[in-house]
Amino acid sequence: MILTDTLLDFFLETRKHSEALCEPLEIEDYVVQPVVDVSPPKWHLGHTTWFFEEFILKPYSQDYQLFDEDFSFVFNSYYETVGKRVVRADRGNLSRPSVQKVYEYRKYVTEHISRLFTEKSSKELNELLEIGIHHEKQHQELLLTDIKYILGNNPLLPVYSTKVEEHVTENGLPEWISMDGGVYEIGHDSEEFCYDNELGKHKVYLEPYEISNSLVTNAEFQEFIEDGGYQKFELWHAEGWDWVNEQKISAPLYWHRINEEWHHFTLGGLQSIVPNTPLTHISYFEAFAFAQWKGCRLPTEFEWEAAQRSFSWGERWEWTESAYLPYPGYLKAEGALGEYNGKFMVSQKVLRGGSIATPNNHTRATYRNFFHPQLRWQYTGLRLAR
Amino acid sequence: MILTDTLLDFFLETRKHSEALCEPLEIEDYVVQPVVDVSPPKWHLGHTTWFFEEFILKPYSQDYQLFDEDFSFVFNSYYETVGKRVVRADRGNLSRPSVQKVYEYRKYVTEHISRLFTEKSSKELNELLEIGIHHEKQHQELLLTDIKYILGNNPLLPVYSTKVEEHVTENGLPEWISMDGGVYEIGHDSEEFCYDNELGKHKVYLEPYEISNSLVTNAEFQEFIEDGGYQKFELWHAEGWDWVNEQKISAPLYWHRINEEWHHFTLGGLQSIVPNTPLTHISYFEAFAFAQWKGCRLPTEFEWEAAQRSFSWGERWEWTESAYLPYPGYLKAEGALGEYNGKFMVSQKVLRGGSIATPNNHTRATYRNFFHPQLRWQYTGLRLAR
Amino acid sequence: MILTDTLLDFFLETRKHSEALCEPLEIEDYVVQPVVDVSPPKWHLGHTTWFFEEFILKPYSQDYQLFDEDFSFVFNSYYETVGKRVVRADRGNLSRPSVQKVYEYRKYVTEHISRLFTEKSSKELNELLEIGIHHEKQHQELLLTDIKYILGNNPLLPVYSTKVEEHVTENGLPEWISMDGGVYEIGHDSEEFCYDNELGKHKVYLEPYEISNSLVTNAEFQEFIEDGGYQKFELWHAEGWDWVNEQKISAPLYWHRINEEWHHFTLGGLQSIVPNTPLTHISYFEAFAFAQWKGCRLPTEFEWEAAQRSFSWGERWEWTESAYLPYPGYLKAEGALGEYNGKFMVSQKVLRGGSIATPNNHTRATYRNFFHPQLRWQYTGLRLAR
Amino acid sequence: MILTDTLLDFFLETRKHSEALCEPLEIEDYVVQPVVDVSPPKWHLGHTTWFFEEFILKPYSQDYQLFDEDFSFVFNSYYETVGKRVVRADRGNLSRPSVQKVYEYRKYVTEHISRLFTEKSSKELNELLEIGIHHEKQHQELLLTDIKYILGNNPLLPVYSTKVEEHVTENGLPEWISMDGGVYEIGHDSEEFCYDNELGKHKVYLEPYEISNSLVTNAEFQEFIEDGGYQKFELWHAEGWDWVNEQKISAPLYWHRINEEWHHFTLGGLQSIVPNTPLTHISYFEAFAFAQWKGCRLPTEFEWEAAQRSFSWGERWEWTESAYLPYPGYLKAEGALGEYNGKFMVSQKVLRGGSIATPNNHTRATYRNFFHPQLRWQYTGLRLAR
Repeated sequence: MILTDTLLDFFLETRKHSEALCEPLEIEDYVVQPVVDVSPPKWHLGHTTWFFEEFILKPYSQDYQLFDEDFSFVFNSYYETVGKRVVRADRGNLSRPSVQKVYEYRKYVTEHISRLFTEKSSKELNELLEIGIHHEKQHQELLLTDIKYILGNNPLLPVYSTKVEEHVTENGLPEWISMDGGVYEIGHDSEEFCYDNELGKHKVYLEPYEISNSLVTNAEFQEFIEDGGYQKFELWHAEGWDWVNEQKISAPLYWHRINEEWHHFTLGGLQSIVPNTPLTHISYFEAFAFAQWKGCRLPTEFEWEAAQRSFSWGERWEWTESAYLPYPGYLKAEGALGEYNGKFMVSQKVLRGGSIATPNNHTRATYRNFFHPQLRWQYTGLRLAR
Repeated sequence: MILTDTLLDFFLETRKHSEALCEPLEIEDYVVQPVVDVSPPKWHLGHTTWFFEEFILKPYSQDYQLFDEDFSFVFNSYYETVGKRVVRADRGNLSRPSVQKVYEYRKYVTEHISRLFTEKSSKELNELLEIGIHHEKQHQELLLTDIKYILGNNPLLPVYSTKVEEHVTENGLPEWISMDGGVYEIGHDSEEFCYDNELGKHKVYLEPYEISNSLVTNAEFQEFIEDGGYQKFELWHAEGWDWVNEQKISAPLYWHRINEEWHHFTLGGLQSIVPNTPLTHISYFEAFAFAQWKGCRLPTEFEWEAAQRSFSWGERWEWTESAYLPYPGYLKAEGALGEYNGKFMVSQKVLRGGSIATPNNHTRATYRNFFHPQLRWQYTGLRLAR
Repeated sequence: MILTDTLLDFFLETRKHSEALCEPLEIEDYVVQPVVDVSPPKWHLGHTTWFFEEFILKPYSQDYQLFDEDFSFVFNSYYETVGKRVVRADRGNLSRPSVQKVYEYRKYVTEHISRLFTEKSSKELNELLEIGIHHEKQHQELLLTDIKYILGNNPLLPVYSTKVEEHVTENGLPEWISMDGGVYEIGHDSEEFCYDNELGKHKVYLEPYEISNSLVTNAEFQEFIEDGGYQKFELWHAEGWDWVNEQKISAPLYWHRINEEWHHFTLGGLQSIVPNTPLTHISYFEAFAFAQWKGCRLPTEFEWEAAQRSFSWGERWEWTESAYLPYPGYLKAEGALGEYNGKFMVSQKVLRGGSIATPNNHTRATYRNFFHPQLRWQYTGLRLAR
Repeated sequence: MILTDTLLDFFLETRKHSEALCEPLEIEDYVVQPVVDVSPPKWHLGHTTWFFEEFILKPYSQDYQLFDEDFSFVFNSYYETVGKRVVRADRGNLSRPSVQKVYEYRKYVTEHISRLFTEKSSKELNELLEIGIHHEKQHQELLLTDIKYILGNNPLLPVYSTKVEEHVTENGLPEWISMDGGVYEIGHDSEEFCYDNELGKHKVYLEPYEISNSLVTNAEFQEFIEDGGYQKFELWHAEGWDWVNEQKISAPLYWHRINEEWHHFTLGGLQSIVPNTPLTHISYFEAFAFAQWKGCRLPTEFEWEAAQRSFSWGERWEWTESAYLPYPGYLKAEGALGEYNGKFMVSQKVLRGGSIATPNNHTRATYRNFFHPQLRWQYTGLRLAR
């Protein structure tokens, strides 16, 4: 358990960081929702604030006055326990509250939280604050990927910032790491924060396997495209094949073919593909088809976790073959926070690692990210196994 | 034909009025599109500007530099002749160009038009300018009704302006006006501006009929509701009945039942219904069902036009029984402007009159407005006939 | 009013004819519903029978035992007055009642009707029987066009009967018939049976016009196709253009391009197009676009009726420009039969004439057929006006 | 490997059994497809026949004449390798080939297979025949559940056969079986036939667990309903909760509330629920919610397989918590048969056991059945673990 003072610093720093991420935006960028999975930036700013108000200030701060009674309706995401809410697809239809009002809301709640934690604190309160901070950090990654989608979907392709670098390292030659068969321990058990879905530590038997020390690159994926990978149904799941055909998919998200050359939209604007850097913005379906084409497969999340000390990771979320399911002995938290993870444990795939959009200290070797198999607006990539 | 100077004044005044209408808005209000029929205000501001650029400056102003090459793609509405365009349902997904940029665009085009018409003029140019002005006036009405929808759809129900009055007159007792059977002349033939769909003057035979001197009121419609009008299928068209049930319609648009009392959202915010003022925001289906319930019917557009000198009109667009069809001898204009009216002449109903949202001088006794029968975000109302 | 004896003969003959139409079918053909507009043949056989049971036997025949209580639920089409019913799109999902059971049902009801009318008769009963007979005749046309769709939609393209001839006459050279402007009388007023939508006789003023003495032929429409008519948006209504693109329409229904030659599916199987015979199976949208391409237009239903003595008609239902609307003084019948026509008077276009699928004596100069503008599985065609 | 003679007997017997299952049907029952997941019985009869023709007769039987060239188009299910096919949702729109023709097709192919295997045989051919037989057995179960759906969806609720008993045993008191933690061997390795998805034998580490010796009963599920289980969102996955609300689910499939008593449709017609017999026709979502309500969970497929000798199974397919994923070392077969299983390994849940509709000898302890989590027209049930 972190001490209250440190925690409060952590809280204030996190609050500030969310706003820093929005600094390059025009007010208009805060409002739109071009597809249902992408939320308006102002919604993220409001929702993360509402979380603190709803789960800490309302129950624990005596005489606390709600900033605005209607905000619960507007900024609740999916907590059925807490009451009615604007349906997800309608978030982009709300011009009010204005961006300025949302910033005032943030300020108000941040101050009240600071005051509350200066005055009193307890293990229970600290734990709630900690989960609220991590919740906001989770939304920081979505904030950045949603901003990218909002700009990348615009025919004018506006630049977010020329200072952001989406790929950091050039890959060297990929090498296979050999892993022995046997029982491995999986899951979280340190004192540090983790989500309920990473608990508890348990044994998994793995057959011997090999896993690549590097992520698949743009150059490798370009070969897949040129070899007609998107036209070969035998490489795809039946649902993946339907997705490719219905959505007319022929390249990763944000790739544009201009004058016979592949470009991609980045937060720094439209740029040429850099061949030897890690591929990103692919769906699980594409990751799977690519692996099939290579005669390999994706690692399971257990293989990934067991091997992760042997390679570096963190530029791309890595699709695994594993479905998002509870660990043995998984227990839902009581009350509304019990809705945090468990209710999504069907029809999704696990991603491991982290990405250049992940806030500092907001991932770890046991972290289990999850998305539906067709989604690709996160910084997703893949690592081969066999 | 209006002289160039007067026309230019008319142009400048119209341009200014569009912006005045947006004056009470927050920037966020300019961006959203809560349903496909409603366009973001900034889109209206840009589109009406693009119209002048595309049809006047581009072809007639030598050395004219486009303000931004991509704007044609963004602000074209449906002119297939002119090239590709953002699909209608995606207008609310574009955060850029920003509102400020759109205002710069307006300034730029307004100035170039002024310069052009100061330097040269011709009957052809004047006619194009005139249609551009009327086009913008048409969008001014949509601008206001779209703003109302954007605010009225928001759970916070923000006020647009407390100075706007949506109903002007209290109704007196309704009286029937008797009209003789016989041949009437219908359509436009004066020198004043009109749209191609109002031309040309032609004869129509009308059987004897009676038409009410006043619009149906909120009080009358409340009786219909209380008598179960929305639950009696025998009053409805089959398509209307499906619409009522699928959309769960039980009152006019913007009506809210609060503490057993009917309120409605207005540009001035949520207010109590005023019983003896004209009903508004109903679909053709509702207008028809109400008339059935009264043992009456709606007038045809010809009956309306033949009788219109005998009653006052102009607070509500009045649904007629007539389908929107070409008059005898209707001729489409050449080129892109030929797309203005003719291509919508199927599946829509004619509305006659005008509304409190209609700009000054932008309607007349021969004006033919048209919408699909289920739409109700315009200031629509009804007058009975029998 | 027809005398009871003659009427009973008419009834028996009509009942027999419906069954004769189904004689070439396999049992499987009676069951399927490939699109929502097409009903399974056994449904037509049952529904026309239910009509006599529901509106005559149940209320007027003492001690009448329903053949099967559940049949009302299965065979009601849209009479809300009469109770719940299987939704239209589910008709093809019902394997029971079996075809044999439906024939037993027909026999049972036919016998009871015969007995009832042998024993007693009245003006009221005779009128109900007459409308029931005409109702069944109306369904005979649908029966044939639905059978054609069921077979023509099957990849095996089975033959219905080699004895059916879908086009009767070769066209001569088309000539324009000139019609004077003036007041014409429109509508039905003889003693013969007609539907409520044809009543009453009323005056219409027509501007002078010309109308072709012949139907547009396959050869003419082929020219339209070869000239790229389906790719020229300026010929189409906006809704028509969307329809063409969404449904990927590039030829009339049932046309197949085989070895560079146009063929079409007929009740006699796949055949070559015969150039100088009347075009059929086109939508209103296609009829309109063709007329635009010719520099002509479609006649209104009034122009058609006023001129119809001057040309021969009856092989194709002719799309008119008129929307399906009530005549002045239109009165809905009381009770469930009031649902027969009036509730469809929105969003549909009027067709005049008749087709090779129309039963004997089941059309007349005042007959108003109506369909939505995109439908084309009826034997629809067009005649030009200007 | 089974000797050819025995295999041929097995083949003939299997072919006969499919037809015996259809014996109680009316011809009409063979044709319809009330929902996309349910195929018309004649399609199953044709498709299983086409499988033998396509994969055995065509490549291996010299001078073999196809029964009908078009049947490949009609009866292919999803083998992209093999060519185009009628889309799944259109199977119920085909009245031809007729049922009689399909039986002729069956006879023709059965005879040619018999002749071929009498004349020559080889390991390769025997393996193909074996997989063809098991393929047909798989379809026999679907045939029965599809027939049940076709009849149970009909408002007349026709009886299939009064001789079928859908529940065999009354449950005793449920008891928990304790299983030790440790490494277990999972998967198929005997000489007997199995599908590729059951191969190969591999180790899995299981934490200690308990599993019930009996299936959940109707009585237990009735308690869940009465306790408001369908209204408590906290018991459901987010996707399950959406499903319940959108589909308005409030009881298992085929359950009808009549005079305050629960009945269910069975192959023997409508019957009262028998409380102490195993629940069936529930989705994974319902199975999961029920387990949550009990404070338990579903077993994984590995827990099930490890424990299965300790309880009896086979009346209901048992939903497990496991996603359908490849076993370590899974290899797709070459060619079209490689499409058999692997391409479905995403978004589905594994079911273990077997059901009263499973043909003799067509399941085993390692058998992995799989369906999407919302489906419930199979004889699905559940067993608790903790």
